[in-house]
Amino acid sequence: MTTATFPVTIPGLSDARFAAGRHPLAAVTGAEIRTPLIHGGHVRYANLDYGASAPALSVVSAYLNEILPYYASVHRGAGYASQISTSVYENARTIVRDFVGGRADDSVIFTRNTTDSLNLLAGCLPLKDGQHSGDVLYLDIEHHANLLPWQGVPHRSIVAAPTLAGTLNRLRAELALGNVALLAVTGASNVTGEILPIDTLAALAHEYGARIVVDAAQLAAHRRINISADDVDYVAFSGHKLYAPFGAGVLVGRPDWLDAGTPHLAGGGAVRDARLDSVTWTTGPARHEGGSPNVLGAATLARATQVIAALDEKDWQAHEDAIRSYLVDGLQRIDGVTVHRIFADTAAADRPAEDAGPGSIGVVNFSLKGYDAGLVAAYLAAEHGIGLRDGRFCAHPLLKRLGLPAGSLRASFGLGSRLEDAQRLLAGIEELLRTGPGWDYVVDAGRWVPANDTRIYPHWAPNTPGTAGAAPCTGD
Amino acid sequence: MTTATFPVTIPGLSDARFAAGRHPLAAVTGAEIRTPLIHGGHVRYANLDYGASAPALSVVSAYLNEILPYYASVHRGAGYASQISTSVYENARTIVRDFVGGRADDSVIFTRNTTDSLNLLAGCLPLKDGQHSGDVLYLDIEHHANLLPWQGVPHRSIVAAPTLAGTLNRLRAELALGNVALLAVTGASNVTGEILPIDTLAALAHEYGARIVVDAAQLAAHRRINISADDVDYVAFSGHKLYAPFGAGVLVGRPDWLDAGTPHLAGGGAVRDARLDSVTWTTGPARHEGGSPNVLGAATLARATQVIAALDEKDWQAHEDAIRSYLVDGLQRIDGVTVHRIFADTAAADRPAEDAGPGSIGVVNFSLKGYDAGLVAAYLAAEHGIGLRDGRFCAHPLLKRLGLPAGSLRASFGLGSRLEDAQRLLAGIEELLRTGPGWDYVVDAGRWVPANDTRIYPHWAPNTPGTAGAAPCTGD
Repeated sequence: MTTATFPVTIPGLSDARFAAGRHPLAAVTGAEIRTPLIHGGHVRYANLDYGASAPALSVVSAYLNEILPYYASVHRGAGYASQISTSVYENARTIVRDFVGGRADDSVIFTRNTTDSLNLLAGCLPLKDGQHSGDVLYLDIEHHANLLPWQGVPHRSIVAAPTLAGTLNRLRAELALGNVALLAVTGASNVTGEILPIDTLAALAHEYGARIVVDAAQLAAHRRINISADDVDYVAFSGHKLYAPFGAGVLVGRPDWLDAGTPHLAGGGAVRDARLDSVTWTTGPARHEGGSPNVLGAATLARATQVIAALDEKDWQAHEDAIRSYLVDGLQRIDGVTVHRIFADTAAADRPAEDAGPGSIGVVNFSLKGYDAGLVAAYLAAEHGIGLRDGRFCAHPLLKRLGLPAGSLRASFGLGSRLEDAQRLLAGIEELLRTGPGWDYVVDAGRWVPANDTRIYPHWAPNTPGTAGAAPCTGD
Repeated sequence: MTTATFPVTIPGLSDARFAAGRHPLAAVTGAEIRTPLIHGGHVRYANLDYGASAPALSVVSAYLNEILPYYASVHRGAGYASQISTSVYENARTIVRDFVGGRADDSVIFTRNTTDSLNLLAGCLPLKDGQHSGDVLYLDIEHHANLLPWQGVPHRSIVAAPTLAGTLNRLRAELALGNVALLAVTGASNVTGEILPIDTLAALAHEYGARIVVDAAQLAAHRRINISADDVDYVAFSGHKLYAPFGAGVLVGRPDWLDAGTPHLAGGGAVRDARLDSVTWTTGPARHEGGSPNVLGAATLARATQVIAALDEKDWQAHEDAIRSYLVDGLQRIDGVTVHRIFADTAAADRPAEDAGPGSIGVVNFSLKGYDAGLVAAYLAAEHGIGLRDGRFCAHPLLKRLGLPAGSLRASFGLGSRLEDAQRLLAGIEELLRTGPGWDYVVDAGRWVPANDTRIYPHWAPNTPGTAGAAPCTGD
C-alpha cells in the first residue's frame, strides 16, 4: 500500500555525515531496558523523551549508591555520617556554582525543580514601601514553570515575533517603557529546542535597569552555561532533566534579593530564632531551604554537573548535532510531516549562518498530517518501543499561537542517545503514514492506548498503562 | 580517677529484660559503615540520630535500583518507561493512603518533607469572603515545621501544661472560645519522643467544630497510624525519617480544602489550562504538585511504608521498647545525667499505667551536668564513633521552656538499631563524666570539633568536618 511518496529512503546509520551520533556519549542507567511490543516480542526501549526527564547517568547512579550508606542528618549532627552528609551537601553548592560559572558571592539554593526555583525567585522580587518596585517581563514562548510563577506578581507579557531579531526588538521596546524589575526568559525552548541569545538578552535587560533570570531547564543539559561571562543574574534548572532524577533543582544567582525575600518554605533551618508567635529568618541559602533538605538529590545533581562539565565540548555538540540533523533531515523527507519552530531565523543547516540565531538543542517538534499526536505516540510506543512526548508540553500559549492547540510530538535526546533511536523513529513514522497503524487504538481516560493490551509489566507497576492519563500535563 | 558514683554498672547486653533489642529489626543501608576515631583506629558507626534522618532500608535501596532503569517522565509520556513510571508514581498514593488508614477519597499529595506538607495545608485553610474563617491552634511543644507555617495565617498558640491531662484541659478551654479552624499537633515530640493521644485530640477538635492535622514526622516511623479509626483529618510525614531519604514527603487528608486552596507551587501539572496572563488550576493532588514530581522519592517512600506495614507490631514495639528502656534506665543510673520529658504523666516503666498517657517512641532527650551538649556530641563522635543530635531540635520555644535554651542531647533509634548502640552511648557518657574528654576540643564556626583533626574522610566529602556548622538548625 504505497503512495507516490512512499517508501521514503532514510539515510543509513553508516552515513558519514552522522557518524558522531552513532554511539551514546555517556552511559545511562536503563539504556538497555527492553519493552514488550503489542504484536509480541521485545525491543530495546528507544528513549526520545530526555526533554521531559532524562535517565540517570550511570556515574550518578553509582555515586548515589556510594554515598547512600553515609546518608544522615545535615548541619547539626556531630556524628561521622552527619559530617560527611553535611560536607557532601554544602560542597554540592560549590560544584553547581562552578558548573554555571557563578560569581563567588552567588547564592546556590537547592529546590525541588525549576518550577520551584522560579516560584522562589518570584517571592524575592524587590519591594519598596511594601509594594513591588517593578514588573516581571516574559515572552509567550515560555513553559509553565516560567509563566505561572510570575502571574502572582506584577507582570507584563509580550508575544514573540516570528524572528529572534524581531523578538529582541519587541523586548527592547517593552523594556524602554520602564519599570521592569526582571526579564524572565528561557535558555532554550522546551517545545522546539531553539536557543535564545542569553548574553544579548542580559545586556538588553541591564541596559534598561532590569535583571534577568534564565530558565535553563533545557539548556543546562545541552550547552555550557557561564552566567558570569554572559552577565546573567539568576539561572534555574532541574536535576531530572540533567541526568540526576532524585528530586532536586537549583536556583543560582545574586544574593541581595534572595537574602531579603520571603523565605520560600517556613520551617526549621530557615530560622535564626523561632518564638511561639514570631520568627527571625536567617540569610543565605538556608533561608529558603526550610525543613530537612534533599541531600541525596543535591549531591547527585552536583555529581551530574561534574560529568557534564568534563565532556569535551566538541564531541558533545557533534554527537547532538549529528542526531538532530539526521532526525530533522529525515522528518523533512517524509510527506505529511511538519517540523515546527518558533523563529524563522534560528540557525540551522538549511539557513546561512550569518542570518541565524544560536541554533537548537536536542529537541525536535513535529506533527503528522491526519494523525492526532497522542495516537502517534501510542503507536510508536506499542509497535516500535519508542518513547516520546505528545501534547502541549506545558506551554499552552505557544502551542495555541503555533496553530497546534491540540498538541504535537516532541522527540528529545541527550548523552545516552544514539542515531539508531532516531532511525527507528523515522522508520515508525514512515510506516504509519504508509500503511496506517497495525493495531487498534482507543481513547481511555483522555489518552490514546492500544486496545486489548495484555502485555506483562513489572509486578511493581500495576495497572499499567491505564494510569498514564492521570494528569493533563506535567511540568517541564 | 573514680568518684563516689563511678564507675557505673551498665546492664550487660545479655540481660534478658532487653533481649528484644539485641538485633536490628530490619537491614538498613550503611549499617556496617566504620568511622575513624580521633585516637586512631575505626569502629562501627553507632547511628543514634534516626529522629533527624533515618538511613534507607536495604529493601528500599534495592527497590530504588530496581526501578531506576525505568525512570522517565510521568503522566504525558506514552512510552514504556513513562507508563511504568506513571504507574509507580500514581500507585504510590494508594500505598501511602493504605499505610495511614486513609479514607477512600482522601487526597495524597507528595511534597518534599513535613515542613512542605504543612506549608501546603496552611495555604488551603478555608476562606469566607476572601478572609480566613478560623484560626489555627497549636501548642508550644511543636518543632518548627508545625509552628512556622501557621505564623503566616490567623493563629493562636498555648503553652502546654506540665501534664498531658492538663494540656488537654487547656486545649479544650481554648477550643471552647470558638473560631478554631484547625488544631495542629504533633503525633510524637521530636524532642522527647512523647506520644500525644491523637484520637482524643481529634475528638476534642471535632467537638468544637475544628479539624485536626497530625504532624507524624516522628510518629509514622514508630507506631501504626490509622486516620480513619482515629478520625484525623490530615496527616503529614517525611520520607527521610521513614527510611526513604530521597526527597519526598506527603500530606494525606480530606480533599475539600485541598481542592479549593491555593496551588502550592505554580507550574506545569497543576494546571487545567494556562493562558499568557491567567490560569485555571486543576483539582486533585496535581493541583499542588507543580513541576515534574519527585517520582523516585514518592516511590521509595511508598515502598518503605510497605515494609513498615508488614512488620509484626509486637516485635516492632518490643525491639524499640527494649532499647529505650535500656537507655533510659542506664542514663538514670549515671549521676550528672538528666533525662528530659515534657509531661509528668507520660507512660513509662517507672509510673503506673493507669495514670499514664500513650508512652514514648525511640527518642530520648538528656543533658550532662557541666558539659555543653555540643561538646558531648563532638566527644561521642570523635572518641566513640557515635552519632547523635545536640542543640534545640528545631523546637526553640519548648527548649527554652524546659530550661534548656542552649540545647540538650537527643539519642534516637529505629529499625536498624541494636542494644549495643545504646550500650556504647552509656559507656561513652560514663567515661566522660568519670575521666573527662580524652582529646582537646575547640569551637569552630559555632560548633565543637576535635582540635587537630587529621582523620581521612572519603574523597567526595572534602573539608569534613569543618562544614558541620553551616546552619544553625535543620528541620526535623
